[in-house]
Amino acid sequence: MIIGGSASQRLAAGVAVELNDMLCPLETRKFPDGERYIRIGRDVGQEAVVIQSTGYPQDQNLMELFLILKTLKRMDVEHIKVVIPYFGYGRQEKRFKSGEAVSAAVIAELIQAAGASEIFSVNLHEDGICGLFDIPAYNLSAMPLIANHIGEKFENPIIVAPDKGALLFAEEIATILGCECDHLEKTRISPNQVETEAKDLDVKGKDAIIIDDIISTGGTIVNASNILRQHGASKVVVSCVHPILVEDALLKIFASGVDDVIGTDTLRSDVSVVSVAPLVAEALRRH
Amino acid sequence: MIIGGSASQRLAAGVAVELNDMLCPLETRKFPDGERYIRIGRDVGQEAVVIQSTGYPQDQNLMELFLILKTLKRMDVEHIKVVIPYFGYGRQEKRFKSGEAVSAAVIAELIQAAGASEIFSVNLHEDGICGLFDIPAYNLSAMPLIANHIGEKFENPIIVAPDKGALLFAEEIATILGCECDHLEKTRISPNQVETEAKDLDVKGKDAIIIDDIISTGGTIVNASNILRQHGASKVVVSCVHPILVEDALLKIFASGVDDVIGTDTLRSDVSVVSVAPLVAEALRRH
Repeated sequence: MIIGGSASQRLAAGVAVELNDMLCPLETRKFPDGERYIRIGRDVGQEAVVIQSTGYPQDQNLMELFLILKTLKRMDVEHIKVVIPYFGYGRQEKRFKSGEAVSAAVIAELIQAAGASEIFSVNLHEDGICGLFDIPAYNLSAMPLIANHIGEKFENPIIVAPDKGALLFAEEIATILGCECDHLEKTRISPNQVETEAKDLDVKGKDAIIIDDIISTGGTIVNASNILRQHGASKVVVSCVHPILVEDALLKIFASGVDDVIGTDTLRSDVSVVSVAPLVAEALRRH
Repeated sequence: MIIGGSASQRLAAGVAVELNDMLCPLETRKFPDGERYIRIGRDVGQEAVVIQSTGYPQDQNLMELFLILKTLKRMDVEHIKVVIPYFGYGRQEKRFKSGEAVSAAVIAELIQAAGASEIFSVNLHEDGICGLFDIPAYNLSAMPLIANHIGEKFENPIIVAPDKGALLFAEEIATILGCECDHLEKTRISPNQVETEAKDLDVKGKDAIIIDDIISTGGTIVNASNILRQHGASKVVVSCVHPILVEDALLKIFASGVDDVIGTDTLRSDVSVVSVAPLVAEALRRH
């Protein structure tokens, strides 16, 4: 039985189809004072899969997840596989100053305390997050699905990482497609501002595909797009797993001359064209 | 050391003054993507008091509370007294249909799992909520503070409960003030609509003080106010512990001819004139 939280309704339906499994009705609504009401509409049996992304609004999506998990435990469901396609707070996984909340660890502990038996997530920003759980935790990569999508649309593109951190993703895709791969150098000036330096970059007349795991404010992407255009790329396309796209990020990206933006449905967005349903379904089948 | 969450900053400062204790700096801010950052700005020692109301936005206030508690535990704070002046989700403490989340129980379990050692709350909507905790939990009554406030402003008022559920509160206040007490009969037609019936009510020429624990949409209060006016009350004043006051509730209450609204600071509102700081401080001193 697949239970889709309100942040991942369509993805849950997709996974249910892939697995030929049933989608459980989940009633969610709010009282006038803003409190959430949740009801699991069917007897679930011994095992359940809960799919809920924890992007914005993070705290509401997390609380909904906790309520679902605790309610399933009270219904005597023994084994709960929890799929968190985008793991919110995943970038706060270390303490830099004393007294700081290690939010990713707190979230992991609470999800576990709420009753999760196994965790599945997609392209965790830090692989160490799996180690925050005492239960089996799997970090799936959506890069092969993105590679397939790019391969269908572009002949012999060049894959570009906008900074060194994204180079592994770019290489993963370039290897699958058997095409070129390069990266830019990024210097972060402030949380919202980055400076990207051009290197010897051979993109002239080529379709350049920028790859990153997350697009948040879009600053990194806009800088990368400008440089690729200056170096004569014929097309600039952006692809990512998690299209967070804060406020006007998508508009800024298109305004910088990007031809297309390709994201997955780990988060709901205007560009969630690649579904991770087959990836999630395959992992649920295997474990 | 007193730590005030972002929902109870002023109350925390008041409690610190009452106890002659230190208020701990707590840095809270949000990243562009909406994720919260928290840092406890000082070494806290072995014991701490955390004060955080969990009214609207409930889920954000709860997540902030969990982050504070877990971070204190990682700082090796042994004993954490948690003050939740208004306990959100407190009206969802029973299961009426199968599969429903018993949200109050889930919240209680998570607060405990996050590291609370003792719980202090004010006028819990259901006293049974204390029993949801395995740690000591105290339900404090703000009615004596409200009674004092009324006693200073009105000579020989009549205290009116807008329905039978509020009669105990009205009696508590009438006993303290040595004044009359009565109640109206309420029939709830829908979650947002109530019908209040008049009885033989002797309020002619008197100052009528309507008392309830919570004012949410204000529907109950508007009905009660209309009836009291029809029966010739010279003044109609409303008092409550928790001024939730959803959307235009306060405006509707004043528009119905109410002369004044008196609430406490368990929640931030335009009418939080009575501080529960002395009540909370006294309870913390005693336990």
